[in-house]
Amino acid sequence: MERLDDPGYITKLDKSKMRMLIGNLPDQFSMASKSFQEAKLNLKARFSSVVVAGMGGSAIGGDLVSAYLSSNLPAPVWVVRNYEVPSFVTRNTLLIAVSYSGNTEETLSAFEDGKRKRARIVCIASGGSLTEIAKSESIPFLTVPRGMPPRCAIGFLSTSILLSIGLAFDVSGLTTELEEVGDVLKKMKNVLEPDNPVKKNPAKKIAGKLAHKLPFVYSSSRMTDPVARRWSTQINENAKSLCHYSSLPELDHNEIVGWGIPREVSYASHVLFLDPGNLSEKLRRRLAVTKEIISQMAEVESLTASGTGNLARLFSLVFLGDYVSFYLAMLNGVDPTPIERIDLLKKRLKEGH
Amino acid sequence: MERLDDPGYITKLDKSKMRMLIGNLPDQFSMASKSFQEAKLNLKARFSSVVVAGMGGSAIGGDLVSAYLSSNLPAPVWVVRNYEVPSFVTRNTLLIAVSYSGNTEETLSAFEDGKRKRARIVCIASGGSLTEIAKSESIPFLTVPRGMPPRCAIGFLSTSILLSIGLAFDVSGLTTELEEVGDVLKKMKNVLEPDNPVKKNPAKKIAGKLAHKLPFVYSSSRMTDPVARRWSTQINENAKSLCHYSSLPELDHNEIVGWGIPREVSYASHVLFLDPGNLSEKLRRRLAVTKEIISQMAEVESLTASGTGNLARLFSLVFLGDYVSFYLAMLNGVDPTPIERIDLLKKRLKEGH
Repeated sequence: MERLDDPGYITKLDKSKMRMLIGNLPDQFSMASKSFQEAKLNLKARFSSVVVAGMGGSAIGGDLVSAYLSSNLPAPVWVVRNYEVPSFVTRNTLLIAVSYSGNTEETLSAFEDGKRKRARIVCIASGGSLTEIAKSESIPFLTVPRGMPPRCAIGFLSTSILLSIGLAFDVSGLTTELEEVGDVLKKMKNVLEPDNPVKKNPAKKIAGKLAHKLPFVYSSSRMTDPVARRWSTQINENAKSLCHYSSLPELDHNEIVGWGIPREVSYASHVLFLDPGNLSEKLRRRLAVTKEIISQMAEVESLTASGTGNLARLFSLVFLGDYVSFYLAMLNGVDPTPIERIDLLKKRLKEGH
Repeated sequence: MERLDDPGYITKLDKSKMRMLIGNLPDQFSMASKSFQEAKLNLKARFSSVVVAGMGGSAIGGDLVSAYLSSNLPAPVWVVRNYEVPSFVTRNTLLIAVSYSGNTEETLSAFEDGKRKRARIVCIASGGSLTEIAKSESIPFLTVPRGMPPRCAIGFLSTSILLSIGLAFDVSGLTTELEEVGDVLKKMKNVLEPDNPVKKNPAKKIAGKLAHKLPFVYSSSRMTDPVARRWSTQINENAKSLCHYSSLPELDHNEIVGWGIPREVSYASHVLFLDPGNLSEKLRRRLAVTKEIISQMAEVESLTASGTGNLARLFSLVFLGDYVSFYLAMLNGVDPTPIERIDLLKKRLKEGH
């Protein structure tokens, strides 16, 4: 744990400065809002559904927005992580194709499928084929800053998705909510960044508990479901560790029975419950009882969101998870930025053609 | 492993005869089809969306049907595992409320929420409050046979959901597909049931490989995603073991990087890739390359579906998983039927009121 307070150790291991990229998240929301206003998209229409097509770090923004809007949008926001869009896509669908690089093969394929199905499309990318095709075919597009791993652009991508849907459906209040996200995250940054020592830094403390363990991230509500997924993928990519996530109330119907076997895994786990801080009475009670039961077989703890609005609550938990995954990378002795196995996989996939 | 060929051992441990309930699955599809015809539901309308509300074993049928219909239905099939239905639910939504017991608190709450939002509702249950309310308020309902754990009624529930949606959207060919499911599963049963010894029984062999390991179930396509989830929950409830599931192509963008840490978990894992047997060239290639890469850190194997139609393919993998979870329960020395921890949880939740 003392390594986490050693700037020399961190600087040496974090060669590509992931800590800076994570620390830039608070600024992304206002920057993306500004770009969105400047892009002057015209999306007025009567859409019956929204589909967000993307993969990995480019898809999770769709999940976050879908959860955030799930109780006040008159249409479903469906996230597709595959080569095709569903058969319900028609000219009344708003299809948001998101690929940070602009070159993700699944997303380009889903985008073409959406064109065939005559969806109304918005592309979001930092460049690449997706932007080129959008330009040449006069398809509306939004550009996000280039030069970072896609997972570090979550603020840019989520804001772009949210404001596109907000424009299409005339959702009010988003600007205020987005401003709060920036404010809340800026305050959190002072507490979570590497300069702040372990004893005052919750992200470092949590990483210390996860080290050499299998992390279980449990969402307590629909709202936090995509946050649990984000924690998991950040732990995968930054800390190069396996991670498991699941959701309440569903896990009370099955997964809770699984605790105890395999014995070595149960005892080598650390369970984090994500609490948005504004749960209904029923879900609050479920969280407490579930946590108590699992505590007999594994270490458990709850992490509560900061902020007032739901968007700030969601992203406060995302931000905490990003830092935790960073410190876990440090404790695992790995450079958080390179994802060599994905590069290898892409190379092998190309060889097959 | 020899215990799996010992009828005395199995009979003694499997007190409530889970092996019989699993073995009854092949018959459920035709029985439920017959009941459905007799119920003479009237669901002709122009629906813009379908929402299936349920939990655990009552929800997974919704996922299977949603995946099965994802490339030929003009509306999304959205599965809700929570107390509320999404805000897009209106009088143009077909809401299917599924609770095997008829008394699941989340489902009853979502059902009431759906009524408030004026959805067109069909209830599916074996009795309980849901059936009572449906009767007294003249809401269409389907009854499935009572007296088994909800997870064992997956054929009844899935068929009821599928045929309701099929009727509402005039989907053709479902009867033929359902007949094939029964035929394929009947043939599989001879191979998978306890009488057939380990050396000729793939389910027993797979269970042997999973024993004392953390099972990872990897879906290779949209179609098999809910099957991976089903495997996981059956392993939770029957074998009382933890289990992890995930999906291609998404896991190629994050989880694949996590293999290797924690070291003890990676090496104590067994990875099963579910292959529907009719993958696109791109996904087939992905499966092969992903499997090869992970094989350097864990045991891996592919399991291929049986059958010709997609529905038979899906349920052939479900059926295999049900038997695997049963044999894993035997190897773990646990009675597959009782789920004491869920009973305890429900008791504690009630105490809180």
